[in-house]
Amino acid sequence: MDQALWQIGPVLPWLDLFGVAVFAATGALAATQRGQTLVTLAFFALITGVGGGTVRDLLIGAPVFWVEDRLYALVCLGVALTIWVTPQRWWNGAALVWLDAVGLGAYAVFGAAKALSFGVPPLPAAVMGVFTACVGGIIRDTLAGEPSILMRPELYVTAAALAATLYVGLRLLGLPSFEVAIIAAAAGFGLRGAAIYWKLALPAYRGLPNDP
Amino acid sequence: MDQALWQIGPVLPWLDLFGVAVFAATGALAATQRGQTLVTLAFFALITGVGGGTVRDLLIGAPVFWVEDRLYALVCLGVALTIWVTPQRWWNGAALVWLDAVGLGAYAVFGAAKALSFGVPPLPAAVMGVFTACVGGIIRDTLAGEPSILMRPELYVTAAALAATLYVGLRLLGLPSFEVAIIAAAAGFGLRGAAIYWKLALPAYRGLPNDP
Amino acid sequence: MDQALWQIGPVLPWLDLFGVAVFAATGALAATQRGQTLVTLAFFALITGVGGGTVRDLLIGAPVFWVEDRLYALVCLGVALTIWVTPQRWWNGAALVWLDAVGLGAYAVFGAAKALSFGVPPLPAAVMGVFTACVGGIIRDTLAGEPSILMRPELYVTAAALAATLYVGLRLLGLPSFEVAIIAAAAGFGLRGAAIYWKLALPAYRGLPNDP
Repeated sequence: MDQALWQIGPVLPWLDLFGVAVFAATGALAATQRGQTLVTLAFFALITGVGGGTVRDLLIGAPVFWVEDRLYALVCLGVALTIWVTPQRWWNGAALVWLDAVGLGAYAVFGAAKALSFGVPPLPAAVMGVFTACVGGIIRDTLAGEPSILMRPELYVTAAALAATLYVGLRLLGLPSFEVAIIAAAAGFGLRGAAIYWKLALPAYRGLPNDP
Repeated sequence: MDQALWQIGPVLPWLDLFGVAVFAATGALAATQRGQTLVTLAFFALITGVGGGTVRDLLIGAPVFWVEDRLYALVCLGVALTIWVTPQRWWNGAALVWLDAVGLGAYAVFGAAKALSFGVPPLPAAVMGVFTACVGGIIRDTLAGEPSILMRPELYVTAAALAATLYVGLRLLGLPSFEVAIIAAAAGFGLRGAAIYWKLALPAYRGLPNDP
Repeated sequence: MDQALWQIGPVLPWLDLFGVAVFAATGALAATQRGQTLVTLAFFALITGVGGGTVRDLLIGAPVFWVEDRLYALVCLGVALTIWVTPQRWWNGAALVWLDAVGLGAYAVFGAAKALSFGVPPLPAAVMGVFTACVGGIIRDTLAGEPSILMRPELYVTAAALAATLYVGLRLLGLPSFEVAIIAAAAGFGLRGAAIYWKLALPAYRGLPNDP
């Protein structure tokens, strides 16, 4: 893996791989729900798993992480194969939603940290964190012909924005990277978890047709 | 901003920022029409505002403009916030359609000029102008689940193609950049304006099912 | 053209141009079926023709092929113009489906070979072959608002995966590039052709709603 990543501590690279695997699983499951083939499962797993990080790497001018390191593609294909051969009931529960929430927080922090380490200014770096966490899911939903996570009022993009902004903001104050990463990822996971548990949603734009 | 941009005169960088702001506004408004949250407004404003220029910069191998210079992301977020807090009736009129027409012409010229200044040959450079002006709107419509501007018969992509081709063609004849930019942007705006005012459309393909 | 491409023999660069032309034709025809204008035909021809190779080049860090060499954009615009002015019945038959099958095999091999020649490891290189062959069609279908080739059970992505994997695998065994390219492209075309002729499809995921 990239040298720059180690600047953000020894834990986040593993969270990165974990995030790729969790997002790959949500992609493969989206394909199973449409009765797709194993090849399509693998394609969706790969695109959802690495999509957000790919856009981030292209935008910040980094070599695309999974093209350099075959581990990521292997993990995505392994996840797709696992979902294909295991009983369907293993994948119906709430576990994946909660793992996705962990991946969301970790991935938003990881994306922002990688952007900062490539010299991106704070505001675009925070946006890179949001893209890293959310773009894979947006591509998955667009290809599957489903309303994207963007268009749902539940707190999803917002939780990623909280984690990425908090990380960048606390780093600007001079706090150490590792501790800040834990705090910011936990905050993003906490907000997303609260949204799942209490079904929190942001207020929608007031100007709906039946509004004054 | 990029040194190469100054080769095309002192006015276009400001038109660039103006184009980003106008396109960001159309993105944020697309989100309000679906009753979305402030975070989604900001996401749509950013993607629509910088989307076309991002694709151009990736294709020509330039550093992505808004990742280097935080001003653009700030403007997009400011536009989204402004639309969120101001009365809805401010944004219902025809003003935005006309501002979008100005942005279309200016942005097509700006994209073609930036591509030429990076050594791209004339034909791909003209295509870069069209992409710069149109891709943000295409991404906005795709994410919003709406038929894209590509699929509407009204003159939109064509106006961008006129502005970009005219700029590249007149530059090939050796005319000075600044004057050519004004002429080409005005021609693109004029064609788009005529299409808005007289509802001009291009002829559609003859081979529809009920045709001979 | 790129020096690295010549490592894979003198034939493939022409297959590359052939693949771009065939995919451009499928893009332009998708636009005619929706009664679009000439400008939209040209846009669809270009995006479908060069889309897969563009994503490949961005991911492997190569200069984008059609931005450097104007020949490709010229071919795409020429194809769109040809389809616009010629009788519609020329384009109704099965010929294009079979040409597309040839393009699919050739393009998957070409994409994998280019990725290998840029130092990409074998697994991501095979994925690059699949992307090169399939992403143009996916973008075309997404922009046209149609279920993408990804979501159809027929063997399409699988044929590309066979060609790309076979090429990469046989190269790993030390076999010469030119012969391997012919074998792998023929295998991909053969599988796709068999799927067209006998309407072969992969088994879908077992877990459909009416399954146990």
